[in-house]
Amino acid sequence: MWRRELAVSAPGKVILHGEHAVVLGKVALAVALDLRTFLRLRPGAEGRLSVSLPGVGVRRSWDTPGLRALRGRIAGKARGKEALPRGTEGLSCLNSPLLASIAGDDESKSPSVEQLDALREFAGIAAGASAPESLATLAFLYMCLAISAKYGDVPSVEIVVWSELPTGAGLGSSAAYAVCLAAALLMVCGAISCPLQEGESTARWTEEELTLINSWAFRGERVIHGNPSGVDNAVGTWGRWSPEIPSRKNHTVKEFPAIMNPVLDSIDAISQECQSVLEAMPANPSPEHYPVLEEFFDINQHHLNVLGVGHPSLDRLCQVTASHSLHSKLTGAGGGGCGITLLPPDTSPLAVEAAKQDLCACGFECWETKIGAPGVTLHSCSSLSAQVLHALAQS
Amino acid sequence: MWRRELAVSAPGKVILHGEHAVVLGKVALAVALDLRTFLRLRPGAEGRLSVSLPGVGVRRSWDTPGLRALRGRIAGKARGKEALPRGTEGLSCLNSPLLASIAGDDESKSPSVEQLDALREFAGIAAGASAPESLATLAFLYMCLAISAKYGDVPSVEIVVWSELPTGAGLGSSAAYAVCLAAALLMVCGAISCPLQEGESTARWTEEELTLINSWAFRGERVIHGNPSGVDNAVGTWGRWSPEIPSRKNHTVKEFPAIMNPVLDSIDAISQECQSVLEAMPANPSPEHYPVLEEFFDINQHHLNVLGVGHPSLDRLCQVTASHSLHSKLTGAGGGGCGITLLPPDTSPLAVEAAKQDLCACGFECWETKIGAPGVTLHSCSSLSAQVLHALAQS
Repeated sequence: MWRRELAVSAPGKVILHGEHAVVLGKVALAVALDLRTFLRLRPGAEGRLSVSLPGVGVRRSWDTPGLRALRGRIAGKARGKEALPRGTEGLSCLNSPLLASIAGDDESKSPSVEQLDALREFAGIAAGASAPESLATLAFLYMCLAISAKYGDVPSVEIVVWSELPTGAGLGSSAAYAVCLAAALLMVCGAISCPLQEGESTARWTEEELTLINSWAFRGERVIHGNPSGVDNAVGTWGRWSPEIPSRKNHTVKEFPAIMNPVLDSIDAISQECQSVLEAMPANPSPEHYPVLEEFFDINQHHLNVLGVGHPSLDRLCQVTASHSLHSKLTGAGGGGCGITLLPPDTSPLAVEAAKQDLCACGFECWETKIGAPGVTLHSCSSLSAQVLHALAQS
Repeated sequence: MWRRELAVSAPGKVILHGEHAVVLGKVALAVALDLRTFLRLRPGAEGRLSVSLPGVGVRRSWDTPGLRALRGRIAGKARGKEALPRGTEGLSCLNSPLLASIAGDDESKSPSVEQLDALREFAGIAAGASAPESLATLAFLYMCLAISAKYGDVPSVEIVVWSELPTGAGLGSSAAYAVCLAAALLMVCGAISCPLQEGESTARWTEEELTLINSWAFRGERVIHGNPSGVDNAVGTWGRWSPEIPSRKNHTVKEFPAIMNPVLDSIDAISQECQSVLEAMPANPSPEHYPVLEEFFDINQHHLNVLGVGHPSLDRLCQVTASHSLHSKLTGAGGGGCGITLLPPDTSPLAVEAAKQDLCACGFECWETKIGAPGVTLHSCSSLSAQVLHALAQS
């Protein structure tokens, strides 16, 4: 039985370069974002498993015998029709060690349509429900039952998850959720160690353990997203920036390939050059490292408009920040959504504040953060900030 | 002695795609613009040669014996130091029949520094004077003396040249001037025919004659521009659009070639695709031919911004016209200068007027015109429009 109170956190991600191009067979450069999802793990009443997601209003509790029985019922449904698109074909040829565990994943372990139907029925979730709270509950149940079936018993624990990340902005909030859940459930079931020694504030897992966390996080992501690329959970697990990002050739540039393919080549080169620049930058880079990063932002923003994933609101965002001598580009899916603005270290706090005010006046929400954050991390609860502790206590 | 009163006209040009890329070794797609330069040719008083350029305030007249003597004096200066950069190296490898005459040009026929100095001294033009009126007078004298030295005597004629084209906007006004001068002077000296039959309004020259006109126009352009590409005089001579445009590798993409070279490849492909679309379009294209041309404009405008030749005023132009559902891009040198906006045939005159008003309110000047105009043309004076006749009569 689990006896300690601990916390797990995982970062969101932001794609610096290569969004959209990644689905056309190119690499993308994703970096960890220092906006994190936090999971608090506590021993629960014997025979109870509970999960609270204060951000989306979920508060559920089940008795473990009922979950064990559910697990038995759905075990026979694993060979049914696959619920989710395969989606990992492109991954198997990747040379990135980062993704070996995904590539080697046995696809028969994906939840079947029948399994997910049974989980929905158990949790009282309507078929086709796609609200974050429904998908988050479904992913929790799936991961809890699948991990406990493989590594141990259904645990009697209380889990609370809260995130600094906005949802639906392409910042990897669902992956950070799945990474935290995978780490906590694998640890509780004894599949990975509890690396935090008495008196330590934080600890991380071994490379082998991280690979296992990432693999299970990817399965959770598949419950939520159907056909995720595997980028978000990899960044959530390993943090910093991804050395190489998986690509899947989902689409082809049908119209005018002679015009469009070179644009993808240029985006690809930007991702690679940017990675070289980031790798060459010291831990505390000075302002002179930034003009080239700004130029990459500007060029890529034009390219994304060429690819048709721009949006007038993103043009507006770029104009507003340009009027403060700051450089922006869209990030994520495009077509609205989210933009990123680079803040060189010599940007005055007043200038940042002024840019934020102008952006807010145009209806944008702003988060000021850092990139290159650490991946999934185990924390002693006492080392968490008051804000995080307060948020987790609201469950 | 020349006995007829005639007019010659030549169109300006606009680069649809490939400006800037052309100096980096790619093709550009230049099309004739239906804004024309008009030259009126009249018999002059015996022994007098005069030229008037009412648009730039030039009104000069010389006695032909004096010009003959000048011609004799400068003939010996032809072997001096070359006044102008060679500039035609890249042309000699072109397979375009259009430019064969330029490629085959004997470079020793370029005016020498001493010749141009003598012409300046004769005309009272200060060394280094670069105002349009100085360069236009110098080009006139050079072309007149060089053509008459090769093909006949210094003619006793009155020449007036007036243009619908704005100067300095990258729209080929100096080339249209040189083409008109070359055609008129070659005709007066008997080097080419006078193809206009009695009772006809307009006539054009044979392909062989056009080649000669183009070759001399290029020399006149070299007096004005030093190192012109040959594009403008070719379009002014042949009209419509240039099947292939000369390229000269003046610069290289030094920084980030892996990022920038694909952008040039894409621009190159746009030029070629656009040419295919234009060639496939009927004489009176219907609206459905235009979306692809609009898309090419949008993509290329982004590319030009990537290459760093954009300008906030051109972004503004694109925004203003986009608010009227019209698509624009910069044309010519960029960095300010001139933009073009596509007007599909189903654009209502009211919409055009509204866009023009908004542009004027932002400080832009607008010219509404057509592309694909005929090249250098001989006119009976009676067939010219009242506006053109009036402008030519102001000399």
